Amino acid sequence: MATSAPRAGDLSATLQLLRDGRPRTRAELATLSGQARSTVAMRVDQLLSSGLVAPTGEAASTGGRPPATFAFNPAARVVLAVDLGATHARVAVTDLAATVLAEHLEVVAIAEGPEVVLDLVARVAHDLLARTGRSASELVGVGVGLPGPVDHETGRPTNPPIMPGWDGADVAGRLQELLGPAPVPVPVLVDNDVNVMALGEHAAEFRDVDHLLFVKVATGIGAGIISDGGIRRGAQGAAGDLGHVAVPGGPAVVCRCGNTGCLEAVASGRAVAAELAAHGLAASTSTEAVALVRAGDLTATAAVREAGRRLGSVLAVCVSMLNPSVIVIGGSLAEAGEHLLAGIREVVYRRSLPLATQHLRIVTSRTGGRAGVLGASTMAIEHVLAGETLDALI
Amino acid sequence: MATSAPRAGDLSATLQLLRDGRPRTRAELATLSGQARSTVAMRVDQLLSSGLVAPTGEAASTGGRPPATFAFNPAARVVLAVDLGATHARVAVTDLAATVLAEHLEVVAIAEGPEVVLDLVARVAHDLLARTGRSASELVGVGVGLPGPVDHETGRPTNPPIMPGWDGADVAGRLQELLGPAPVPVPVLVDNDVNVMALGEHAAEFRDVDHLLFVKVATGIGAGIISDGGIRRGAQGAAGDLGHVAVPGGPAVVCRCGNTGCLEAVASGRAVAAELAAHGLAASTSTEAVALVRAGDLTATAAVREAGRRLGSVLAVCVSMLNPSVIVIGGSLAEAGEHLLAGIREVVYRRSLPLATQHLRIVTSRTGGRAGVLGASTMAIEHVLAGETLDALI
Repeated sequence: MATSAPRAGDLSATLQLLRDGRPRTRAELATLSGQARSTVAMRVDQLLSSGLVAPTGEAASTGGRPPATFAFNPAARVVLAVDLGATHARVAVTDLAATVLAEHLEVVAIAEGPEVVLDLVARVAHDLLARTGRSASELVGVGVGLPGPVDHETGRPTNPPIMPGWDGADVAGRLQELLGPAPVPVPVLVDNDVNVMALGEHAAEFRDVDHLLFVKVATGIGAGIISDGGIRRGAQGAAGDLGHVAVPGGPAVVCRCGNTGCLEAVASGRAVAAELAAHGLAASTSTEAVALVRAGDLTATAAVREAGRRLGSVLAVCVSMLNPSVIVIGGSLAEAGEHLLAGIREVVYRRSLPLATQHLRIVTSRTGGRAGVLGASTMAIEHVLAGETLDALI
Repeated sequence: MATSAPRAGDLSATLQLLRDGRPRTRAELATLSGQARSTVAMRVDQLLSSGLVAPTGEAASTGGRPPATFAFNPAARVVLAVDLGATHARVAVTDLAATVLAEHLEVVAIAEGPEVVLDLVARVAHDLLARTGRSASELVGVGVGLPGPVDHETGRPTNPPIMPGWDGADVAGRLQELLGPAPVPVPVLVDNDVNVMALGEHAAEFRDVDHLLFVKVATGIGAGIISDGGIRRGAQGAAGDLGHVAVPGGPAVVCRCGNTGCLEAVASGRAVAAELAAHGLAASTSTEAVALVRAGDLTATAAVREAGRRLGSVLAVCVSMLNPSVIVIGGSLAEAGEHLLAGIREVVYRRSLPLATQHLRIVTSRTGGRAGVLGASTMAIEHVLAGETLDALI
C-alpha cells in the first residue's frame, strides 16, 4: 500500500518550516510538523538532494551521536525580477531570499510595445545571469510588474492606458520563449506595478505587519493592498486603482479621463508640476517639482503639502474601509518627504475613526526605487516554493 | 513509530471533502485527498462514530461487494446564532449547514447592558433547544453579532458608541457560563453585526462570489468586506466602518461625531428621517421614511434617492479600492428598494473605472432580517469544523 506517497504540498510544508533560516534537526522538524519521523527524514533527503536545504552542522548531543541540522539554502536557485515603468526597465537576479545578486536599470519607453521591451528584458537577464555566474537552468521563476491593470491569472495586461500595444499581450509566454530553451517553461508571474511594490515593501520592511497599504504617487496614483498578510487584487485585478476617485472637498479640475476632481488630476506628480508651471515655475514632472521642494521653494512646498491633504482625504476613506496598520507612500512625489506626509497625516488623522488611527503609521517607502524588483522577486519565490510547484524543482 | 497519528487538521480536511453533501466512497476520498486508503478508512471511522458523517448507501459496484458511501450529516450537532441590534435580539438554533431549526425575535435595548441582554439570550437559547428537542450537550458553537466594534480575537467590544456598559465585556465567557455546565466550554465567536451580516449573505446567497461588500444602511452605516473569499477585519477589527467618512460633494451637515459631512449625517436612515421631518412629514426613523416611500410620497422618494447618491459617492471609492463583484445593500433603509439602489448605481457607475464596474452587481439583501443569524451560525460552524477544534468533537 502506498502509505509513503507524500501529499501534494507536503514537501513545501517541510521547506516552509526551514525558511526562517534557523538550522533544525529531523527530530525538531517532526515535532514542528506533527509528522512521523520517517516521513520527515524522507522529505529532508529530497530537499537535501535538490540543494534547497543544506546541512549546517550538528546540534548539541543529549547523549550518543549528535543529530545533524539543516537549513534553507536560498543560494540554491535564482529568480528574475522585472520592474517595468512608463520610462524604465529595472531587472534583477535574486536568490531565493529575494536578495539582489545583480541588477540593471535601463531607460526604455513602455510605449515601444511588448516586442521591444521584452527583448530588452531578456537580453539584460542573460547578461545579469552571466555576471553572477549562474546558468539559465538555475532560473526557477520570473516576477514582472507592469504599469497598468493586469489579469493576474493569465498575466496579460487589460486595456492598460499608458501601454499601447500591450493589451492582452502574452507577457509570460513571450518571456518563457526568450529565456528558454528549458525542458519545463519557467513560471512567469505578472502583476501591476503597485501590487508588486506593495509586496516588495511588505517583504523587505514590514514582514510582521498584516495590514499594509502601499500608495504610489507619481505621474499616476495607485495603491497595493496587503490584508491579512496577502495581496488583495479584487474581482478583475483592479483593486487599489485610486487615480480616478473623487476627492472629497477637492477642486473641480477636469481630468484626462473626462470626469472632474479625480485624485490624479489634483494630487499626482503631474498635477503638482502643472500647478507650479502655472505659477511660472520651471516644473513639468514630479522629479522637477520635488527638486523645487528640496531647494526650499515655498510655492512648491505649499503645493506638495496641499496635494498631501487631497491624498489624505481619499486615504481617510481607505483607512476607515481597510483599517491598515501602515500606509507606505512611494513613487516619485514621495521623495518630497515630510511635506507630502504632513498633508496626508493632517487629513487622515482628522477624518478617520480613533480606533482605526490609534496605531496607524504613515511613512515614506524605505525600499525606494527597489520596491518593484523586490516585490517581483518575492512574488516569483512564493509561487515557486509553495505547494505543488515545488515538486518540479526536486 | 507513531506513523498512524493524524496531523492536526487531517480529520477536518477529510470532513471538508464531504461538506458539499455528496455521498462518497472511501476510495473516492483517498483519490480526492491524495492520502493512503488506510488513513482515510481510519478517519471515516472516527467521523462515523461521531455522527458528523453518516452512511448513505452503496455506490454502483464494479464487481464484487459494492462499496459503502458516506456524506456529511449536518443534523449531528447544533449551533446557536445570536444577532444583537440596538433594539432587538434575534436568536436561532441551526444545524451544521446553517439551516435554522428554530428562532425567536425579542425586543430589547442593547443599552440595558451585557448582564440583562446576555441573560435574555441564554434563556431564549434554552427555550429554543427545548423546542427543537436538542440538549445543551449537542451545542458545539455559538456565533454572536454585536452592533459596535469588536476585537474578534478576544470577542470583547471596543468602545462601542451605542452600547453603554459593554466596553471590554467578556461576552464569550459570560455566554459560556450561562449555557453550561459543559465538560469543555463551547466556543463562542463574536464579531460586529455588519461583518456577521456579510458572512450570512455570502454563505446563503453568494457562495460562488469571492469579492463581496455588504453595506448596512440603518440608523448607522457600516460595511462588511469579503475579499478572496474571507472576511477582512483590518488591524483593529475596524475595517468597513464607513459611517464617518466625508462624502465627496456632499452637504456640510454637522455630525454627532463633531466632524461635518459624514456619510452617516447625510445618508443614514436617521438622516433621511430628519430631512423629511424638516419638510413637515411624519418620519423619525428609517422605517417611517421607508413607509412614506412605499406610500408613494414624492418628497420621501427624492430624499431616499439623494441618500443613495451620497452613499454612491463613497461606495465609488470602495469599488475603486476593492473591486468587488457584488455590493449588497442591507439594513432598514434598504427596504426602500429600487429608489435607494438607483441613487447608488447612478454615482458608482459614473465615478468608477470601467474595469471595476464591468461585471459589478449592486443589489438589496436577499436574506433580509436573517442575514445576522445566518452569518453568526456560519461563523460558529466554520470555526468548529475547521482544523484542530474538530478533534474536541470526536
